[in-house]
Amino acid sequence: MGDKVTLVVFSGELDKALAAFNIAVGAASSGMEVTMFFTFWGLNVIKKNEGPLRSKGLRRKMLNFMNRGGAKRLPLSRFHMLGLGKWMMLKLMKESRFPSLDEMIELAKSMDVKFMACTTSMGLMAISRDAFIPGVDSYCGVAAYLAEAREARLNLFI
Amino acid sequence: MGDKVTLVVFSGELDKALAAFNIAVGAASSGMEVTMFFTFWGLNVIKKNEGPLRSKGLRRKMLNFMNRGGAKRLPLSRFHMLGLGKWMMLKLMKESRFPSLDEMIELAKSMDVKFMACTTSMGLMAISRDAFIPGVDSYCGVAAYLAEAREARLNLFI
Amino acid sequence: MGDKVTLVVFSGELDKALAAFNIAVGAASSGMEVTMFFTFWGLNVIKKNEGPLRSKGLRRKMLNFMNRGGAKRLPLSRFHMLGLGKWMMLKLMKESRFPSLDEMIELAKSMDVKFMACTTSMGLMAISRDAFIPGVDSYCGVAAYLAEAREARLNLFI
Repeated sequence: MGDKVTLVVFSGELDKALAAFNIAVGAASSGMEVTMFFTFWGLNVIKKNEGPLRSKGLRRKMLNFMNRGGAKRLPLSRFHMLGLGKWMMLKLMKESRFPSLDEMIELAKSMDVKFMACTTSMGLMAISRDAFIPGVDSYCGVAAYLAEAREARLNLFI
Repeated sequence: MGDKVTLVVFSGELDKALAAFNIAVGAASSGMEVTMFFTFWGLNVIKKNEGPLRSKGLRRKMLNFMNRGGAKRLPLSRFHMLGLGKWMMLKLMKESRFPSLDEMIELAKSMDVKFMACTTSMGLMAISRDAFIPGVDSYCGVAAYLAEAREARLNLFI
Repeated sequence: MGDKVTLVVFSGELDKALAAFNIAVGAASSGMEVTMFFTFWGLNVIKKNEGPLRSKGLRRKMLNFMNRGGAKRLPLSRFHMLGLGKWMMLKLMKESRFPSLDEMIELAKSMDVKFMACTTSMGLMAISRDAFIPGVDSYCGVAAYLAEAREARLNLFI
């Protein structure tokens, strides 16, 4: 059993995404091999911050408008308060010189953290590959995640 | 250490329940032995969709009315919007020929996924055994869950 | 690989905290070594119930006022209903002779469950050490958590 870590990123909230990337970057910098499997709302974390919405069908258009995603658009899981809480959190992060989520994502990629995007969720929400940032390593289903997780020493669902 | 998976299903939301069953069915179909431990709001996932409420005492009656459960009644964790978001999600699932949660539960049972219901939570909320679907394999406490989890290769809290 | 358990307590909600402590106490009483890593909103679980707020700066004062914490102040993750749902839950717990969260915390400490408080989150929210109950064993970052988790048999993110 190798020294691997897998993280399922199910949540599309800023605070949970920051926790996931903190663990991922920490594990990678202590020499562990890290895989993040982004599924459901978690896909929002690795969507591009810019770019048009190209989903087909009215319901998917509506869903993808509300659920637009991108690291800069994620809400907080608590005290979001229509954005006021989030604005406060971002200010605090800046004052504490805490890296932004965008920076954490870049850092993770520079340390070879592997990003998997869940094709089942993508199919359900009609999200196409060009909605994501360039760093996604593979588009796959739960079987590929399980193949990694059963070899790993630490597996978390976030 | 056998090739086991355990999932604690704490959340009673449709999206998280779908994620749990996707992992359970995926793991079972790749030959792993899967146990799901339903606790707290997660008990709602395996309640019957029909049938009267038979809890004693006004507070438990109120709680069990609001918290009625059954795979068809679970809300979404985000964008539920008094049911509109959920209705949209169910439509999308149908269009994508994604199985419903009821179908996923049946599929899991047909693959011998083991269901445990947490008796501590049942006692707290005064939920009796006849509130659940037939597929529950055992009614037990956290000790029985831990006995499975310490033998398993993959353990998640959902 | 020893018979260890680690729990990341990210959530600051009463129901999730009870689940975490149930698992912790259950594992400790079956002879496992348990470490709880409190981070982000989870820090609220181990804050003192009393005492003044001493954070510096208006934004941190505001955040720490809303996010005051202490085992007695945690909301429910569902049906909190401005405190009505929580009041009902506390009544049910008392009727079922279920220990309160304060009692569970004491029980865990009496069984040598190790408490780690995440210094990164403390820095971000400007929470000082004197905000916490006496039982905290160490103030540390994600690296110390990972050192425990990679040696453990069961790791959960709650």
